[in-house]
Amino acid sequence: MGKSTFGNTFTVTTWGESHGKALGAVIDGCPAGLSLCEEDIQKYLNRRKPGQSRFTTARKEDDLVEILSGVFEGRTTGTPISIMVRNTDQRSRDYGNIATSYRPGHADYTFDQKYGFRDYRGGGRSSARETIGRVAAGAIASKILGELGIRFCTYSKSIGSVSISHIDPEEINRNAFYMPDAEAASKAAAYLEDCMSRKDSAGGVVECRITGVPAGLGDPVFGKLDAILAQAVMSIGAVKAVEIGDGTAVTSLNGSTDNDGFCMKDGNITKTSNHAGGIMGGISDGSEIILRASIKPTPSISQPQQTVSSAGEELSLEIHGRHDPIIVPRAVVVVESMCALTIVDALFSNMSARMDRVKEFYSEL
Amino acid sequence: MGKSTFGNTFTVTTWGESHGKALGAVIDGCPAGLSLCEEDIQKYLNRRKPGQSRFTTARKEDDLVEILSGVFEGRTTGTPISIMVRNTDQRSRDYGNIATSYRPGHADYTFDQKYGFRDYRGGGRSSARETIGRVAAGAIASKILGELGIRFCTYSKSIGSVSISHIDPEEINRNAFYMPDAEAASKAAAYLEDCMSRKDSAGGVVECRITGVPAGLGDPVFGKLDAILAQAVMSIGAVKAVEIGDGTAVTSLNGSTDNDGFCMKDGNITKTSNHAGGIMGGISDGSEIILRASIKPTPSISQPQQTVSSAGEELSLEIHGRHDPIIVPRAVVVVESMCALTIVDALFSNMSARMDRVKEFYSEL
Amino acid sequence: MGKSTFGNTFTVTTWGESHGKALGAVIDGCPAGLSLCEEDIQKYLNRRKPGQSRFTTARKEDDLVEILSGVFEGRTTGTPISIMVRNTDQRSRDYGNIATSYRPGHADYTFDQKYGFRDYRGGGRSSARETIGRVAAGAIASKILGELGIRFCTYSKSIGSVSISHIDPEEINRNAFYMPDAEAASKAAAYLEDCMSRKDSAGGVVECRITGVPAGLGDPVFGKLDAILAQAVMSIGAVKAVEIGDGTAVTSLNGSTDNDGFCMKDGNITKTSNHAGGIMGGISDGSEIILRASIKPTPSISQPQQTVSSAGEELSLEIHGRHDPIIVPRAVVVVESMCALTIVDALFSNMSARMDRVKEFYSEL
Amino acid sequence: MGKSTFGNTFTVTTWGESHGKALGAVIDGCPAGLSLCEEDIQKYLNRRKPGQSRFTTARKEDDLVEILSGVFEGRTTGTPISIMVRNTDQRSRDYGNIATSYRPGHADYTFDQKYGFRDYRGGGRSSARETIGRVAAGAIASKILGELGIRFCTYSKSIGSVSISHIDPEEINRNAFYMPDAEAASKAAAYLEDCMSRKDSAGGVVECRITGVPAGLGDPVFGKLDAILAQAVMSIGAVKAVEIGDGTAVTSLNGSTDNDGFCMKDGNITKTSNHAGGIMGGISDGSEIILRASIKPTPSISQPQQTVSSAGEELSLEIHGRHDPIIVPRAVVVVESMCALTIVDALFSNMSARMDRVKEFYSEL
Repeated sequence: MGKSTFGNTFTVTTWGESHGKALGAVIDGCPAGLSLCEEDIQKYLNRRKPGQSRFTTARKEDDLVEILSGVFEGRTTGTPISIMVRNTDQRSRDYGNIATSYRPGHADYTFDQKYGFRDYRGGGRSSARETIGRVAAGAIASKILGELGIRFCTYSKSIGSVSISHIDPEEINRNAFYMPDAEAASKAAAYLEDCMSRKDSAGGVVECRITGVPAGLGDPVFGKLDAILAQAVMSIGAVKAVEIGDGTAVTSLNGSTDNDGFCMKDGNITKTSNHAGGIMGGISDGSEIILRASIKPTPSISQPQQTVSSAGEELSLEIHGRHDPIIVPRAVVVVESMCALTIVDALFSNMSARMDRVKEFYSEL
Repeated sequence: MGKSTFGNTFTVTTWGESHGKALGAVIDGCPAGLSLCEEDIQKYLNRRKPGQSRFTTARKEDDLVEILSGVFEGRTTGTPISIMVRNTDQRSRDYGNIATSYRPGHADYTFDQKYGFRDYRGGGRSSARETIGRVAAGAIASKILGELGIRFCTYSKSIGSVSISHIDPEEINRNAFYMPDAEAASKAAAYLEDCMSRKDSAGGVVECRITGVPAGLGDPVFGKLDAILAQAVMSIGAVKAVEIGDGTAVTSLNGSTDNDGFCMKDGNITKTSNHAGGIMGGISDGSEIILRASIKPTPSISQPQQTVSSAGEELSLEIHGRHDPIIVPRAVVVVESMCALTIVDALFSNMSARMDRVKEFYSEL
Repeated sequence: MGKSTFGNTFTVTTWGESHGKALGAVIDGCPAGLSLCEEDIQKYLNRRKPGQSRFTTARKEDDLVEILSGVFEGRTTGTPISIMVRNTDQRSRDYGNIATSYRPGHADYTFDQKYGFRDYRGGGRSSARETIGRVAAGAIASKILGELGIRFCTYSKSIGSVSISHIDPEEINRNAFYMPDAEAASKAAAYLEDCMSRKDSAGGVVECRITGVPAGLGDPVFGKLDAILAQAVMSIGAVKAVEIGDGTAVTSLNGSTDNDGFCMKDGNITKTSNHAGGIMGGISDGSEIILRASIKPTPSISQPQQTVSSAGEELSLEIHGRHDPIIVPRAVVVVESMCALTIVDALFSNMSARMDRVKEFYSEL
Repeated sequence: MGKSTFGNTFTVTTWGESHGKALGAVIDGCPAGLSLCEEDIQKYLNRRKPGQSRFTTARKEDDLVEILSGVFEGRTTGTPISIMVRNTDQRSRDYGNIATSYRPGHADYTFDQKYGFRDYRGGGRSSARETIGRVAAGAIASKILGELGIRFCTYSKSIGSVSISHIDPEEINRNAFYMPDAEAASKAAAYLEDCMSRKDSAGGVVECRITGVPAGLGDPVFGKLDAILAQAVMSIGAVKAVEIGDGTAVTSLNGSTDNDGFCMKDGNITKTSNHAGGIMGGISDGSEIILRASIKPTPSISQPQQTVSSAGEELSLEIHGRHDPIIVPRAVVVVESMCALTIVDALFSNMSARMDRVKEFYSEL
């Protein structure tokens, strides 16, 4: 499919630019009868909202969501759910040389090359605001998954050179970085203050753990669960690597140390370890799914940078205004949302994988 | 789309099991008029053929390709190209406890969970032989790209703990590991001999570099070039991580060190560095595309391993027969093939990105 | 794909219910650089607007379109175009037995069967208002086609038993029925008055003729141009048959009378007749494309009708309020829109059909 | 999707030319555990085999099917099912002016226009032999449907001007035309003899009735069941119109005569008539689905016909060799197959339409 629609059965189509009238998404293939209200979506959007700490942009956006279709008397109807967030900060301003020169690390140059021109206001479609549609859809996907006992635990695993040393889920929502380790969060704050003092920015790692996923999800060979998760997460701006389970570390393991053995526990088959990160042969194995995304430093920095104008003149660019010195914390809910969208779609696709279950399903209607 | 078809405009559908009658692929959306013969495909298949060194399985397969449709008088006709490779080694044998127990690190357990039973002969559909269809299709994609000046340089970047220190393209086809560094290749041989003596296996990294890709390929936001490359490469069995450009290393860079500046060179806009790996905002920027895949150690090892039977009995499993002690060298052409398929599809999709070019195209017919 | 998205490269996703907050569409894959404003879309929406004659429902809707994204400084940017029409007539009212009983000829029963419940206000998603998104997208598709010299002539061919005897394009917009024959239009008015006096409704035929379509569009075998046109037009509510060229009449022709011969005209190959309706083997042949849709009578009639409640009680239903006594005139622009969407998508897909043209395209960048 | 793949969840990809090495199909998304052997498919292929009466081409083809993958120990494994039929009649011959001139009523001209050249042997990809892949896939779809109690009754409704007057299912397989009316079949024979004596050909109507389809199948608004059936059937070569239920006849009905009332029967909601042909609002209503395809006369006739060469010279063409004087009888199983493929796909898609059913499905695993 590509372009602006994701998924096969449960799909999301996103639209909108940073400084256009609004941004939104159309979610299609949502089962009828799911209890849903705007507050269900708003609380996910609030997790990506700017202005929540001194480490995020000061841009003020309420990002209030409106459900325009697909919900009747508090329940989804099975028809497309259209959601919209109005941009409240569209005032005309002087974009200065942003409009005519290429910001390093941004998509300005490639958009011009592909489309011939671009909406230069705030990055247009390539702005991080584009993820509003993903998160709104992810909130709906997460609600479906919650009813099936599937839970997410997503957090910042590292901020620059500062990594967590343990996972305390309770801590995640207590610090500005969504880190599950209070001490690491405090070191991260110091690390970032230093970056900011040098007019620089930092990257980091988001990790997503998903429990309760039944064995059997994923469609070999091109719709493997890890393959679609990789597409989903790599499609987020600023992500430069996706790892499943031990990820890049498998390259220095041996078969004897990477393989997960099987054993019996309480009468059920289970694994003795989880190097695979819950996916074997592209299909979920019933254990925890573990995924990591490597996120690059915010490209907008206020240091002078070498670049060119669209007319081909070399120049030194200084980007004014305040920007997030780090993308990672606000990306946590975006990574979680893309994983939720992937899992829901795999769940629905899997319903017709076996003839005995298809027969049972239709014999009960 | 998912399942067994990849791509939107230029698509490949693969089929076949390790010990079934044959394996193959249907390539659809190939432009008419491309010169194509079986030898074009055979030379790619030969790159993944087993039995080429003491580091690959002794299983003897000629893997001779047959083109069944879509080519007439030496040229593609625009209709589906069906290719097939007969399995010559289908003799009935005793699969012993492989048939009833779950090999660690394999998809045996998850296939049983998803489908209720499985073709246990040699891994069935989850065998690495499944990649025959991908490579055959990749050969056709590469031929198209070659006519447009797009070239691949793909190699093993590391084997276990042994990494290359430089890239000598001439060297790649001179050693059993497809490493572009003779000294590293010789160390890799020693490393693997040691692994094999311990009845163990090793992983490593495949790197793919693509030159000549025009700026503008990739379809934000879900069909971004890096997103589809990630899906394509993660869908290969044994791949556990995909990186673009600096990949996981971006997490410890700062904006000032990760951003690629722009400058003028010979009258053209170019970048001063390529941390991004040739893709900005999901769209190719005209510089070299760089991608890495982390590949896990071969799961089949002859050491005893802890596992369970499908009936739920714990047991110690020894896998007999000789297996590749490392997947990496044979995966090189598979990674290249998946990248080629992705680039071709993005090329065709991009043809309608601008109204002026659409008009020019149709005004010339 | 199915569900609420149509097309492969140029796609439209529609959303919205009759009495929800709004209806709309997201158009993706529109080439960048197309001049576009709200008025371009509004004039198409006005063609389907109710309340224009005594033969359409008195429901008052301005159906003012708003473009929310994808257009910058008067031109499309290549990103998704989101359009929305607010429902102005959402006042709470008593839907009476409509909410709990099944209107004959409507989708009430099947929506309940599929989804478990339904938005019963004005038909919800199955209302003819759903076509607003189609027409808005069709307006954009038509604008693209217009720049390529492709023109539509769409009209009511028959209203009940009254058929046109000739085609005068100038006449189409002069009567309430969009009939290209003034005399037929006047007979149709009398026919409908009679229907209305009997509290009954009428059906008819919409015909669409498309000129300027280059030879070569359509993708055998499942993406044939006639096949996708058939899906596109049959997906419009109330359409019960789709014909191409001579349509059902071919069944009583012979090969000698149905075949279109070829001849030379002004140095170009052309056909001596057009029984095929411009499509041969699923591919456009350069002559006029001719398509017809058979549209059933409006199911909402104020006569008592036999039906049941959702609780399973038999009852006699009288549908109050004024409804269009005929769907045909307002369906004209909907049929045209679906054809335009199909042709644009086929145009873009066709750009990669030949290797020589692909090479030329990329060599010129 | 388009091109050579049909379906979303249960998909078929067909390949092959009339005089190439072989033809075939890849069926993906077939549930695991379905009992399947080559004979299941062969008996469907035999229904379209030529040479069965004096009214079909004398070309001798056994069309023996081979299953190459996806079936293990007599059951489908859930992986792609590859089927192949070798062409046995590929001898080199003189195609004479067929190779360089355009046969009226055929796709020769449009293939040349689209692809630049064509495989002219026997029509290549545009030959009716292309339907072998459809029928093989349809056989598998029909087997799935049969296990769910869904049955097809497909037959020739008319041959030229000869129509059936009643439906006797037992009679269908007793005559060369698959007509459910012995007297009509005998008149059809006389009609065709006359056509053949005039070196001419005839068209007709295929009707397909499907019983046992549960209410709820079909995905508004673009994946409506009637819309996908229309695409499926119109994609068959020679089909020029598709009708659902009363089809074109609805245009002269009134709402009062076209609407199907509802009543109770044995405690269940049922309809008092079936003008709609089993589909309301694009969703199956549980009653019989009725579809008709209008099929044009065989374009290959041995009368001289006016045409041009690819070089642009006018000429009179006589097509030698014996051809079917009518396509209709052999199209019966093709129409049935396309309908079966559509229904299976809609069945699988529908499994996730309601949240309560999704929850029940996964709670039982």
